[in-house]
Amino acid sequence: MDHPSYPAPGAPVRAGVPEHGRVPKYYAVKAHVARLVEELGEGGALPTERDLAVRYEVSRETVRQALRELLLEGRLRRQGRGTVVAGPKLEQPLALASYTEGVRRQGRTPGRRLVTLERFAAPAPLAADLGLGAGEDVWHMERVLLADDERMGLESTYVAVARAPRLDVEFDPDSSFYAYLRDRLGAGFGDADERIETVLATPREALLIGTPPALPMLLLHRLSRDADGRPLERVRSLYRGDRFSFTTRLG
Amino acid sequence: MDHPSYPAPGAPVRAGVPEHGRVPKYYAVKAHVARLVEELGEGGALPTERDLAVRYEVSRETVRQALRELLLEGRLRRQGRGTVVAGPKLEQPLALASYTEGVRRQGRTPGRRLVTLERFAAPAPLAADLGLGAGEDVWHMERVLLADDERMGLESTYVAVARAPRLDVEFDPDSSFYAYLRDRLGAGFGDADERIETVLATPREALLIGTPPALPMLLLHRLSRDADGRPLERVRSLYRGDRFSFTTRLG
Repeated sequence: MDHPSYPAPGAPVRAGVPEHGRVPKYYAVKAHVARLVEELGEGGALPTERDLAVRYEVSRETVRQALRELLLEGRLRRQGRGTVVAGPKLEQPLALASYTEGVRRQGRTPGRRLVTLERFAAPAPLAADLGLGAGEDVWHMERVLLADDERMGLESTYVAVARAPRLDVEFDPDSSFYAYLRDRLGAGFGDADERIETVLATPREALLIGTPPALPMLLLHRLSRDADGRPLERVRSLYRGDRFSFTTRLG
Repeated sequence: MDHPSYPAPGAPVRAGVPEHGRVPKYYAVKAHVARLVEELGEGGALPTERDLAVRYEVSRETVRQALRELLLEGRLRRQGRGTVVAGPKLEQPLALASYTEGVRRQGRTPGRRLVTLERFAAPAPLAADLGLGAGEDVWHMERVLLADDERMGLESTYVAVARAPRLDVEFDPDSSFYAYLRDRLGAGFGDADERIETVLATPREALLIGTPPALPMLLLHRLSRDADGRPLERVRSLYRGDRFSFTTRLG
């Protein structure tokens, strides 16, 4: 499924608020560059900031502001010292299927890199979510999400140690946790509640994912339950807002 | 369902990248103010920038950067000349139900304000999505979404004129378009494909919604079909990223 915008005739101009007669200068440049991006196609190299400033007769700071927004939106990306047209955002289905399967379905190779594995006494709200007594032990596993070695996000999984007592020794962190729960522990997924919002990456998150700080991210909170309705895991998945979208079919 | 984060012990410090020994100054201030926000609770008034600068022994510009992120994330909001703790984000279920029903379910009063109603020949991609011949007429209806008179987003609906020939004269733009289709035109919803991403508001969108330009927004694309599987409408809904989240139950 393709998802273009459908501007009415004249809309590219209107997006710059002409009802007030004032189109912000950087935004006019952004609209020009956006057209250039369409002409160049994925992987096409953008002219330098200096060339664009000359072409559109604006300052380099104005060009930089326009490019910054196109970079944040994932329409451009840095490559070496230059800037090229980015590919389309990855589409991750909202489904019980794992990240692994979502990425594979798009012909890319999923990967995960372990950042943190720690065990601690669950604070009260986490204990309540996981159906534990306060102070019972939980694992916190934090992994960078990869697609073809490109860093796409950061995922924190919280699961009761009682559920997965040997997680630290028998689980390969570069594999699907869902497959581990299902195949090794016999814990099948029943259902899950999810919530999606947009947040800004913290400095640490930006460093781990390799994005500029304060890049808008898609944050997905998930609480999943097993087939008996017992809480299974709580997950906090942070996806690069410039590289990711979620899809769903409503019936 | 509550959705706290579950930082492990020490995490508030780690979010500032202490593995490198450098916590950005503005981020340290942001973490302090975030704790203050929790203590104050919804509606609580934040000290002035000047007071915060004195309290944390940083420049006012550093305080401003910290507050800017908390404002973009919807944890603070401007009120008059001051800054107060914002309420929780609205949770909109991802469902065929309309915006109207989603807002009502949270005890708030939904509203819509018409910005644009225009009729034009569908460009090829829109015609294809709506199952029309190229050049067949479509309506484009653009409305600001309200909750208790607070502007929450901006929605563009595209529907074939052949589907709703009298839209311009018989539809009340401050009502639910879904209800109109169902009750007046007998067009029931069958299913819909949705895609969610984060984008930056254009200057015009920011002006219409009353947000700062470049605020991260949640953008929802929807293509819905009637019970016979025929395309019904294409919708582009832009929701304030600082005020909205989407929820779903996966089974």
